[in-house]
Amino acid sequence: MKQGMDRPPALLWDWEPGEVGRNPGGLPEGEGTGGKGLNTVQRGSRLWAEGRERAGSEGGKRDEDLVLPINSSLSVTLHQDQLKTTTTAAISKDFTEDRIWLNGREEDVGQPRLQACLREIRRLARKRRSTGDEDPPPLSLSYKVHIASVNNFPTAAGLASSAAGYACLAYALARVYGVDSDLSEVARRGSGSACRSLYGGFVEWQMGERADGKDSVARQVAPESHWPELRVLILVVSAERKLMGSTAGMQTSVETSPLLRFRAEAVVPGRMVEMTHCVRERDFQGFGRLTMKDSNQFHATCLDTFPPISYLSDISRRIVRLVHCFNAHHGQTKVAYTFDAGPNAVVFTLDDTVPEFVAAVRHCFPPESNGDKFLKGLPVRPASLSDELRAALDVDPTPGGVKYIIATQVGPGPQTLDDPHAHLLGPDGLPKPAA
Amino acid sequence: MKQGMDRPPALLWDWEPGEVGRNPGGLPEGEGTGGKGLNTVQRGSRLWAEGRERAGSEGGKRDEDLVLPINSSLSVTLHQDQLKTTTTAAISKDFTEDRIWLNGREEDVGQPRLQACLREIRRLARKRRSTGDEDPPPLSLSYKVHIASVNNFPTAAGLASSAAGYACLAYALARVYGVDSDLSEVARRGSGSACRSLYGGFVEWQMGERADGKDSVARQVAPESHWPELRVLILVVSAERKLMGSTAGMQTSVETSPLLRFRAEAVVPGRMVEMTHCVRERDFQGFGRLTMKDSNQFHATCLDTFPPISYLSDISRRIVRLVHCFNAHHGQTKVAYTFDAGPNAVVFTLDDTVPEFVAAVRHCFPPESNGDKFLKGLPVRPASLSDELRAALDVDPTPGGVKYIIATQVGPGPQTLDDPHAHLLGPDGLPKPAA
Repeated sequence: MKQGMDRPPALLWDWEPGEVGRNPGGLPEGEGTGGKGLNTVQRGSRLWAEGRERAGSEGGKRDEDLVLPINSSLSVTLHQDQLKTTTTAAISKDFTEDRIWLNGREEDVGQPRLQACLREIRRLARKRRSTGDEDPPPLSLSYKVHIASVNNFPTAAGLASSAAGYACLAYALARVYGVDSDLSEVARRGSGSACRSLYGGFVEWQMGERADGKDSVARQVAPESHWPELRVLILVVSAERKLMGSTAGMQTSVETSPLLRFRAEAVVPGRMVEMTHCVRERDFQGFGRLTMKDSNQFHATCLDTFPPISYLSDISRRIVRLVHCFNAHHGQTKVAYTFDAGPNAVVFTLDDTVPEFVAAVRHCFPPESNGDKFLKGLPVRPASLSDELRAALDVDPTPGGVKYIIATQVGPGPQTLDDPHAHLLGPDGLPKPAA
Repeated sequence: MKQGMDRPPALLWDWEPGEVGRNPGGLPEGEGTGGKGLNTVQRGSRLWAEGRERAGSEGGKRDEDLVLPINSSLSVTLHQDQLKTTTTAAISKDFTEDRIWLNGREEDVGQPRLQACLREIRRLARKRRSTGDEDPPPLSLSYKVHIASVNNFPTAAGLASSAAGYACLAYALARVYGVDSDLSEVARRGSGSACRSLYGGFVEWQMGERADGKDSVARQVAPESHWPELRVLILVVSAERKLMGSTAGMQTSVETSPLLRFRAEAVVPGRMVEMTHCVRERDFQGFGRLTMKDSNQFHATCLDTFPPISYLSDISRRIVRLVHCFNAHHGQTKVAYTFDAGPNAVVFTLDDTVPEFVAAVRHCFPPESNGDKFLKGLPVRPASLSDELRAALDVDPTPGGVKYIIATQVGPGPQTLDDPHAHLLGPDGLPKPAA
């Protein structure tokens, strides 16, 4: 189930614990949406992989896969109006097995990370009920679960839905099994960086120091309302096969890259302090420069891995060049790129810069067709490029190089949906046709 | 004269000192060829740039530009039968100014690095004559020099001719001015890594420790006859504009890349020892793996530079993938890539692997036209790919991605040409029409 591993369930769930008993038929009664976690400094999927190595090399229980990172990291949660996952889960005594549907297709529920999440949430639920002043664990703890989840953004875009997915899964399972403790560990077992997606706004994932990972948790640095001018543009580039190391995986980086170890130990701690300061002060110059430098350094350590890993394509590099030309023209850092484990660019800027930068992207990457669908998400007013800026953009136009742009902003954490029409599972516990 | 700076004179010169007096008309009497210095571990042009920074930051005389590296490095000198520079120089009391012609076109003789070489060689000549038991410096020391130089390899290939060029210039000027001391410093002033090109075979450039750079010299690790099975394939890829940092230059790396400093101090010294050992033992497995790792790490530090520098293109990355697939299929390191400051790959392998690897390159990069000119240099017998290898080459074919291959091997240092017909300057001290 490679598909399932690469793009695990993207779930947020809303099932009030107290309602389980009222719903013996296992009919879904709630649902939720979860913002996607894309990071400003270090990105989740890679840290998660590095964390696995650390757990192993420290003699942690490998089979339990603690998923601890080798350095702390920051992320921003993107707004659900543009990028969201919707998930419905239900438990019932009538279900004979755990099942999961992703974007309408049933996937293997036995994949290890999903199983780890289910095991962990059931353990927490059992613990809560047995230590609290409630009755002994109800039968519902042994009920099987059905989960359905859809993304409103194209999965082909390579936008790393696993963080949002496992955050939603953790949130949803917590509701259904009546768990209200910190969910970092549950989410982390699915995808390390998922623990950050449990919060809105700007979130830090503290690496922690304990071997058992109990102190490797997420905390909110600033809420989504903190920096209202901040905008996020996702530049989705032409899909293309990965040219190196697609199977090697990031876990080899820790084993083979001397630069990665140095980065984690000597560079990242200082940058975490600096980046947190920039966010708190809403210092876009500092925020932008550090974001770009850190993205570059992350990709440098990928290249220093053996065999090397390269997520950036020539289009990615043209975007990098465009951003530096744009900033040089303005004499200040007005836009900043960061790249996750793929060629798509995530560009940060402030609201008053969006129209001109989008025009610059159109200039350098003329839409090949459907120009009206080039821009998705937040509305952007049209703008024209000055002759000076056009001349400063020292990039050969590459038609179709950027497929489209998603304009969005910082968003809140998991939200509960109360409208039954939004449920993804029908009364029979199976996905509705639309899901 | 950007042209001159990027691609400085590529010269090797042969003028017996004693003959200067016998040739008052300035007619050239000798000529030579010089192998190009391409490195197995660290590459010259980048180290040179880093060295400039070091000289500056240590308070060295910046205007004299000592060109000291921040780490030691190794190179192999390629064979002149495939890649050579031919240079003729002459001095005469009748010449009214220093002049230089590169590939038939006159260039600015006033460019700083060229002037630094001329100044340094004349200083050494003066010193030798005044401290020796000879007569006071002859008038010829004040004569102007004419220099003409041609490459037999396409300058468009981006094969970094500056190392060969300045090695030749140093060698030629030493002959004409009667200098027989170590020429490392003269060559280094032109292009840092040029000091390595003064020797054939496998050459080490010791970074040295002295602030004045007197101990930053080249020495031969092994002669060109040491490893006769070793072959070098240069994969020249489609020309393309550099996408980042073409103007930023490597000197910003030292200022902005934390990874570069760590690499120079903590990684390279151990790798120098290991690589030297591999060369001495003719251990291709170790040599190949370390060559690839170090190329990747160098390019990682380029990416960690701000703004980032990226010399590799998508075609470069496809070549990287091809090499790893090829090796994985064979279960051992049979070929190894290294990339200089550009997208062309330099591939090391042993003679018995060349035919199969060339067939693999043809498979992944089908020649678009002139298939008969796809392979230059050493003859390579045709070979076909096994079905297993063809299946293992998990690379989408990219027609024309590799323009051609130059097959060559390790070669000797500067050679003197005695045949007057090979001279590039005519009796009038000007380039012959053919030059």
